[in-house]
Amino acid sequence: MVSKSQIKLITSLNQKKYRQQHGLFVVEGIKGVEEFLNSHFKLHSLFTMEGFFDEQENKEHVSENELKKISFLKTPQKALAIFEIPKVSKTEKKGLQLVVDDLRDPGNLGTLIRLCDWFNIENLVCSKQTVDCYNPKVIQATMGSITRVNVIYTDLYEYLKAEDLPVYGAFMNGVSVYDAVLPKEAILILGNEANGISSEIENAVTHKISIPQFGTSTTESLNVAIAGAILVSEFKRR
Amino acid sequence: MVSKSQIKLITSLNQKKYRQQHGLFVVEGIKGVEEFLNSHFKLHSLFTMEGFFDEQENKEHVSENELKKISFLKTPQKALAIFEIPKVSKTEKKGLQLVVDDLRDPGNLGTLIRLCDWFNIENLVCSKQTVDCYNPKVIQATMGSITRVNVIYTDLYEYLKAEDLPVYGAFMNGVSVYDAVLPKEAILILGNEANGISSEIENAVTHKISIPQFGTSTTESLNVAIAGAILVSEFKRR
Repeated sequence: MVSKSQIKLITSLNQKKYRQQHGLFVVEGIKGVEEFLNSHFKLHSLFTMEGFFDEQENKEHVSENELKKISFLKTPQKALAIFEIPKVSKTEKKGLQLVVDDLRDPGNLGTLIRLCDWFNIENLVCSKQTVDCYNPKVIQATMGSITRVNVIYTDLYEYLKAEDLPVYGAFMNGVSVYDAVLPKEAILILGNEANGISSEIENAVTHKISIPQFGTSTTESLNVAIAGAILVSEFKRR
Repeated sequence: MVSKSQIKLITSLNQKKYRQQHGLFVVEGIKGVEEFLNSHFKLHSLFTMEGFFDEQENKEHVSENELKKISFLKTPQKALAIFEIPKVSKTEKKGLQLVVDDLRDPGNLGTLIRLCDWFNIENLVCSKQTVDCYNPKVIQATMGSITRVNVIYTDLYEYLKAEDLPVYGAFMNGVSVYDAVLPKEAILILGNEANGISSEIENAVTHKISIPQFGTSTTESLNVAIAGAILVSEFKRR
């Protein structure tokens, strides 16, 4: 049974303002909820259809119709949970750090979090204007990876000023990443989908790199998550 | 002015059945429509708000409200055009050929078409069950790249049997792509989002490759378009 006040709370969590006010966010689907239950995230409440999460205490059984009322998905996925937004701080781990400057698309951020998880990049540093990582669409796209990556929102300019690692940035006119010297410890910055890296942040970049375009076509750019994947792979393969 | 029969035709083109029946598909947005107008695709009709495509003949001016009635987008993008679906045949060009086995997500197919365009892969060969490349969401995701890539739907098993190139397939348990010998002329197969490459097609694979997972996490897989990007980049960089 889902009460009116619960429906009101859950639907409000589609908006960043209310996620921040309540310190809560939503996870949907059996697999996604399981990943969060097995992580450091703290459960606030769990709504599930019968036959799932039998061993979990403090759950509420819901019908398919009730689930439809609280789900953000077109096709609700049998379970929906609310978790607490944790305090995240950057680990001191060295290696490659990924930075995004005003990324706007939830799918792109989610895909990059999954990429960090795969390539063991512990910290993903985001400008304050970057889409919120607790947005339901980002959570969905991360496929649980966000439980294993620290996503930090901060003033990028101040952050970069305080770091003494070489700073690589993805630019159309950069040096080919295939020819570049790529150290094990570095910062890699990806820019906004439409405008790339902002001029303020460009000033902090010490090495401009790019992915060479083959052929003669007029393609303007690669999707930012695709470009990020190719660049991260280049850093990690060496 | 948009007539009722035009509205009916356009909205029907959201479905593959009607796209095939009419041999037509929809492109939205100024930039997207421009890319198709400057390509080998044949225009059927163009609906645009005033102030755009002034030099184009045979266009119809529409109001914002009319555009809302025919658009597949939440926020209509000032112009919508219908183009004819061309007869596509594989070029004889050698090099790397990308093959997808039952890809289902329109965004993934669109992103891979854009990837092919960037890396000058002329032919993208799809199993018959793969999502239709004239699906409006695919067209949107390709950002015009589909005008420069041949997307061919065929019986994959028959197609692979007739080719004598080495066949590489992306598998979780394959040889690290960073260590593999990658020839300039080859076929690279990517599988379905949930199930990977089907067992029938697996039989045709001569080299199983994978992207090594760094770190100790339990991430199950990379997004297929991300994996495709890293693998294609490895073939092309050498």
